[in-house]
Parts: sequence; C-alpha cells; structure tokens
Amino acid sequence: MKIRPLGDRVVIKRLEAEETTKSGIVLPGAAKEKPQMAEVVAVGPGGYVDGKEIKMELKAGDRIFFSKYSGTEVKLDGEEYLILKQDDVLGIVEE
Amino acid sequence: MKIRPLGDRVVIKRLEAEETTKSGIVLPGAAKEKPQMAEVVAVGPGGYVDGKEIKMELKAGDRIFFSKYSGTEVKLDGEEYLILKQDDVLGIVEE
Amino acid sequence: MKIRPLGDRVVIKRLEAEETTKSGIVLPGAAKEKPQMAEVVAVGPGGYVDGKEIKMELKAGDRIFFSKYSGTEVKLDGEEYLILKQDDVLGIVEE
Amino acid sequence: MKIRPLGDRVVIKRLEAEETTKSGIVLPGAAKEKPQMAEVVAVGPGGYVDGKEIKMELKAGDRIFFSKYSGTEVKLDGEEYLILKQDDVLGIVEE
Amino acid sequence: MKIRPLGDRVVIKRLEAEETTKSGIVLPGAAKEKPQMAEVVAVGPGGYVDGKEIKMELKAGDRIFFSKYSGTEVKLDGEEYLILKQDDVLGIVEE
Amino acid sequence: MKIRPLGDRVVIKRLEAEETTKSGIVLPGAAKEKPQMAEVVAVGPGGYVDGKEIKMELKAGDRIFFSKYSGTEVKLDGEEYLILKQDDVLGIVEE
Amino acid sequence: MKIRPLGDRVVIKRLEAEETTKSGIVLPGAAKEKPQMAEVVAVGPGGYVDGKEIKMELKAGDRIFFSKYSGTEVKLDGEEYLILKQDDVLGIVEE
Repeated sequence: MKIRPLGDRVVIKRLEAEETTKSGIVLPGAAKEKPQMAEVVAVGPGGYVDGKEIKMELKAGDRIFFSKYSGTEVKLDGEEYLILKQDDVLGIVEE
Repeated sequence: MKIRPLGDRVVIKRLEAEETTKSGIVLPGAAKEKPQMAEVVAVGPGGYVDGKEIKMELKAGDRIFFSKYSGTEVKLDGEEYLILKQDDVLGIVEE
Repeated sequence: MKIRPLGDRVVIKRLEAEETTKSGIVLPGAAKEKPQMAEVVAVGPGGYVDGKEIKMELKAGDRIFFSKYSGTEVKLDGEEYLILKQDDVLGIVEE
Repeated sequence: MKIRPLGDRVVIKRLEAEETTKSGIVLPGAAKEKPQMAEVVAVGPGGYVDGKEIKMELKAGDRIFFSKYSGTEVKLDGEEYLILKQDDVLGIVEE
Repeated sequence: MKIRPLGDRVVIKRLEAEETTKSGIVLPGAAKEKPQMAEVVAVGPGGYVDGKEIKMELKAGDRIFFSKYSGTEVKLDGEEYLILKQDDVLGIVEE
Repeated sequence: MKIRPLGDRVVIKRLEAEETTKSGIVLPGAAKEKPQMAEVVAVGPGGYVDGKEIKMELKAGDRIFFSKYSGTEVKLDGEEYLILKQDDVLGIVEE
Repeated sequence: MKIRPLGDRVVIKRLEAEETTKSGIVLPGAAKEKPQMAEVVAVGPGGYVDGKEIKMELKAGDRIFFSKYSGTEVKLDGEEYLILKQDDVLGIVEE
C-alpha cells in the first residue's frame, strides 16, 4: 500500500540522524530532537489549491528540511510517514 | 437515510484499525488513538466555495488519511460519521 | 412573526433527538448533547457577501447537520431558533 | 443630535424585552440577558468598504436580531445606542 | 507643530464629556470612562492602502464616535491626540 | 556602515523626548515611556510587497510618530535603530 | 552538502557579534542575546509563492538584519543555519 497525496501535499519519511556532538559523543535516541531532515516519498499533483495555482518543485527521493511542527503523522504497514504541504518544505539538501 | 454534503465537504467513516505493536501484542480499544484512516461515504458537488472554485478529487469508496482534529462528528441511524472539507483530506491509500 | 435572514444566512430549528443508546436505554434530556440536526425555517437571498458571490443551496424544510458552536441563538414568540451562515451547514439529510 | 454612521455601519437601539418564562413568571431585569432584538435608527451609505462593494439592505425602523458581542455602545443625549456593521445583523423580524 | 497623518489615518482629539447620571449627579473624572466622542483634527490623503482604494469621508472639525481600544495615543506640544484609521470611526455626530 | 531597508520598510531613530509634566517637573529617564517620535534614517524602495504595490511616502529626515510595539530593534556601530513597515508610521510631524 | 531553499526562502548564517558595552567591557557568550545580523548563504528562486509573484532582492554574501523569532534552525555537517522567508529580512548592511 502507498499514499497518494492530494493537492500541494507531499509524503515524507524522517531520516535517522546519526548525530554526534562536537566532542564526538554519539547521543542515544532519547536525548535527540526528532530530526527535521526527511526523504520525499510521494508528491501531490499541485494545481489550484485554495484558489491559487501551485507548481510542485519536489520529486520522490529528494532529501529535504521541513518546518518544525508542520504536517500530520500517519502510519501505514507499520511505517511512519509525515504528510505536509510543499510550502512547509524549507529546502532541498544537495551534494 | 443518508447525508448529502454541501460544497467542498465529504462524509467519511472511520476504519477500525487492527493495530498491533511491534512486539505483536494487539492493543485493546482504550489504549489506541482514534484511527485517522477512513472510507469516503459521500462527496459534495464542489463548485465555488468562499469565492474560489473547488474541484472534487475524491469519490465514495476511497480510503483516505485525514487531518487530526478536523471535521465534525455526526450520528445518523446509530452510525457515526465525520463531515470535513476536502482540504482536510491528506491523501488516498492505494494498493 | 418570522425572521427574514440577511445575506448568506439561514434560520434553523433544532430537531429533538430521540436518542437511544446501543443497549436500548433512552437517555433523559440532561444526559444528551444538544442535537446537531435541525430543520431549515428560512433562507437568506444570498448574493454578494463579503465581496464573494454566494448561491443558496438550501430551502425551507430541509433537514440538515450543522457545525457545533456555529450560529447565534435567538428567541421569537417563545420559540428558539439558530441563525447561521450557509457555510456552517455541513450536509442535508435525505431519505 | 443624531449619529450618521460611516460606510457599512448601522445605528441601532435595543428593544426592551418583556420576557416571560414558560410558566408565566415575568423575570426581573437583573435575571434577563441583554436583549438581542433592536430597532434600526440610522443606516450608513454602504459603498466600497475594505475594497468590497457593500449594498445596504436595512432601513430605519427595521426590527432586527444582531450578533452577540458585536458593535460598540455609545451614548448620545442620555440615550444608549449600538453601532455595528450590517454584517453583524442576522435577520429582520417581520409580522 | 502639527501631525500630518499617512494613508487612511485621521488625527482626533477627545472631547471632554460633561456626563451626568440620570439622577443629575455629575461624576468626577476618575469615575468616568474615557469618552469615545472626539473632534477630527487632521485627515490623511487616503488613496491605496494595503492594495485597496480608500476614500476619506471625514474632514477637520467633524465630531465623531470611534471604536474603543482603537488607535494610538501620541502627545505633541503637551496636547494628547489619538491617531486611528478612518475605519475605526463609527459615525459622525450631527445637530 | 548603514542599513538599506527592503521593500516597504523604513529605518528610524528614536528622538530623545525632553518631556515635562504639566507642573513643570522634568521626569528622569527611568520614569518616561519610550518616546514614539522618531526621525527617518532610510527608506526602502517600496514596489510590490505581498502582492500589493506600495508607494513610499516618507523620506530621510522626516520626523514621525509610529505604532507602539511595532518594528524590530537593531544595533549598528553602537547606535540603536528601529526597522518597521511604512504602514506602522502613523503620521509626519510638521512645523 | 548544501541547502537549496525553495520559493521565497533564503538560507542565512548568524554572524558572531563581538559586542562591547558602552563602558568597553566585552560580554561573555551567555550574557549576549543571539545576534540578529547574518550572512546570506543561499537564495531561493522566488516566483509565485502563495499566489503572489515574489522577486528576490538578496544574493549570497549579503549581510542582513532579520526579524527576531523568524525562520527555522537547521543543522548540516555540524554547522547551524537559519532558513527564513525573504520578507523576514529587514535590511541589508552596507559599508
């Protein structure tokens, strides 16, 4: 099963951060904030949303930063996803 | 009796989640959050809503995810439904 | 006396719910929530409201569901009515 | 002296409610809510208000219901009036 | 020195209310609410404000009622004025 | 160094108020509210801001009143400035 | 790795303030507010955002002041950045 997002929404999946403090100590899960980096899983069709034309700039596979507290968490087949509006995506991470 | 939604609204019915924890234990009803997956029961005609043209993307029978805290619960013939705006529907679940 | 609603407003009258629990026990008045089903009593002319053209979809006699906490209660000749905007009407109940 | 309301505003005067409970007991002033029925005293010219054209539907002498908590109370020559926007008028009471 | 208001703003000066209770007793200053009647001192040019064309309806010398809590108090040459948007002026007092 | 404001913003510098009470006593700094009179230091180019065309009415050197709590304080070369939108400027003080 | 901001967003990096009080004492880190001056690292493409055309006025390397509490902090390769909308940039610092 997969989720087909409506309008200007995208489905993303959080990336596990292997975060290391400056002193080199790896923080255990509980001490970490939820990561704000994610991978795009599915992209809505865009088009007219709330009377305004929205062009989708993202594609599946993009690694992105997204706004804290944005979106709705959903679970499908035991996996957790986040569905949010493209406007809550801040930027794309590039190599 | 049935409900004919107005404008850009849809009537949905929550799907019972047979949720299982990772360890395989089935959670009893009281320990579960209300499911956010639902089946579309009826779809409004769309058209001009609040001065903007809305095209309906959903049809009866679609299985969807919807925004937490959105919509209004109503009861008809002993059955519980939720009426919400199409914009509160996040995505369609596909096989 | 009667109320002629302005713009995109409608006058409705709550329907008494003869609500029965699943076990068949009829709840006394005090234990029930106020019903959200109502009958339309009068419909405004619509037209341009707040700069947007609104077409009225309702007619007197329609049985409807409406949004919780919407509208203003008024009393006329000892009867209680609720005046709300058509957009606060969720759907029409049909046989 | 009189008040000439600007834009889409109207000046109204509350009508004293001779409210009677179902059992026929007349409630003294302190036990009553402020009445929401009023008589229109003066009507603004309408026209473009906040960039939208507003047509005035009311005329002096109309008896109306208005939204709770709307408008501003003013006093002129010892009389109390309420100045509110036409959109806060819910409907006209007709014989 | 004088204040030339920008856009759709007006400069007003509160009128001292010689308010008398119904029983004929004159209330001392501390027991009175701040008066909501004022005289217009200066009127902005109007024109396009926030993308909407605003036509000024007021002129210096008009006596007006204004919205409670609206505007900003300023002091110039020891005199107190209030600068507010024309839309916060409720109506003009006429003889 | 200087600040070039973007869009419809202006940079202003508070004017020290030599405020005197009615009885002629000069209030020490701590007892005074922050003055709301300021001198315009720099003016943005205006143009389309949030989809609306804004024409700048102010020029460097204007003495103005501005809205309480508006704008952001910044410090440059040890001097304090306030950057705010032209719409938060209430009026120009003229001789 | 770098961040490519979407729409009207910019990526900035706070500039370390070597702030000195008037008496010449350098404040240690903990006693300083976070600086509001930053350097622009990357600029989005602009274009139609929320139905309005936005033209980007900033370029990488600009030193700017930005609105307190605006934007979202992100971390990439151990460096902290702030992603905000161009409209939260107050002005450009020039020599």
